[in-house]
Amino acid sequence: MTRRIEIVENILNANDRISTINRSILDNAGVFSINLMASPGAGKTSLIENTLALLARQLQIAVIDGDIATDLDTQRAIRAGAIAHQINTGGECHLDAKMVNEALIKINLDKVDLLIVENVGNLICPATFQLGTHKSVLVASIPEGDDKPYKYPGMYRGVDALVINKIDLLPYIDFDLTYFKRGVEILNPGLRTFELSCRTGEGLEQWVAWLTTEINLVKASAL
Amino acid sequence: MTRRIEIVENILNANDRISTINRSILDNAGVFSINLMASPGAGKTSLIENTLALLARQLQIAVIDGDIATDLDTQRAIRAGAIAHQINTGGECHLDAKMVNEALIKINLDKVDLLIVENVGNLICPATFQLGTHKSVLVASIPEGDDKPYKYPGMYRGVDALVINKIDLLPYIDFDLTYFKRGVEILNPGLRTFELSCRTGEGLEQWVAWLTTEINLVKASAL
Repeated sequence: MTRRIEIVENILNANDRISTINRSILDNAGVFSINLMASPGAGKTSLIENTLALLARQLQIAVIDGDIATDLDTQRAIRAGAIAHQINTGGECHLDAKMVNEALIKINLDKVDLLIVENVGNLICPATFQLGTHKSVLVASIPEGDDKPYKYPGMYRGVDALVINKIDLLPYIDFDLTYFKRGVEILNPGLRTFELSCRTGEGLEQWVAWLTTEINLVKASAL
Repeated sequence: MTRRIEIVENILNANDRISTINRSILDNAGVFSINLMASPGAGKTSLIENTLALLARQLQIAVIDGDIATDLDTQRAIRAGAIAHQINTGGECHLDAKMVNEALIKINLDKVDLLIVENVGNLICPATFQLGTHKSVLVASIPEGDDKPYKYPGMYRGVDALVINKIDLLPYIDFDLTYFKRGVEILNPGLRTFELSCRTGEGLEQWVAWLTTEINLVKASAL
């Protein structure tokens, strides 16, 4: 068991080293980047499509898409106007810094303002692996249930922003928003939170405003 | 990398050995058992509650509950009338045969007709680890989206039955049931499928009828 733990620690150390390299590459290029994580079907790809619809005219957006089997999400990102690069993890349940590093090399970052890394749909394993992105963003969704912060504390504790998607379904689902938010507040006090619906478009303007501010901050420090 | 693969293979071999032992224990006791897997929030615990509400008067049902942090689901199973045992995986993203074996020893199986093992909410890692149960059952849900079979083929390929939960939300969500089922059919032809809603109760009788048949089959071979 000790041997197994040792190996896991070595993998994580190596990951952290590459993640620092990734951050330098992104900082030098002035590219603001997010690691988008969620449960399967919470709406990561829909959020990317909506973000592109609102920002792709003014900004160049790149998407690195992690999936265990298909390129369905990458196709959706390209259709929505992104420069997109696919990572097939071949069964791995998370992205790591090396996979992102290999993808970064293939993208011409000079032209990019925002990089969205869409992680594998999973509330557990991706929380452990830093990718080098500036912010980690979790997409939660109403149909998943209001107990998720309590059940996946590692994920909720480690993120810099939270998107609560599918708020248009609140009338049809037993979801106690106060109970949900209390759990979030315990784990991650003051967490920046966006309540929105990718289906109706409600609440997207605050999300896009935050992204724009962060993009400008990173661009300014790269000058 | 080879060393890592070797270790993973050793872990899986050990797991398969213990899983065979678990199956013998269950067969000898005449207990039909299922490994219930799903994405977070698809409705595993709700399905257990509904199953208990319909069967707990005639049958004794035990639940082994795997969670990374809390015992919220175990509490729900106990309230609904089950003998329940909690496994906190301490961050591990799946149950393995050893965890289930340790739980089995603590349950008086002589009195039990049905054992439901509620796996950790995750569509990837649990698919790799056999637990020794008779059937693997996947709970999918409408809000997760109709592309999930295509994106998580390992999970959809390996199960013996599929529950499609939250069908009451179909009018409010863009979900193409034909596209979803085509993906399932490619990966797992003829898969036994139950369309139901744990919220409205619609479709639960077919699910419970299947469980009852399987319970009787295992009981009959143990006599």
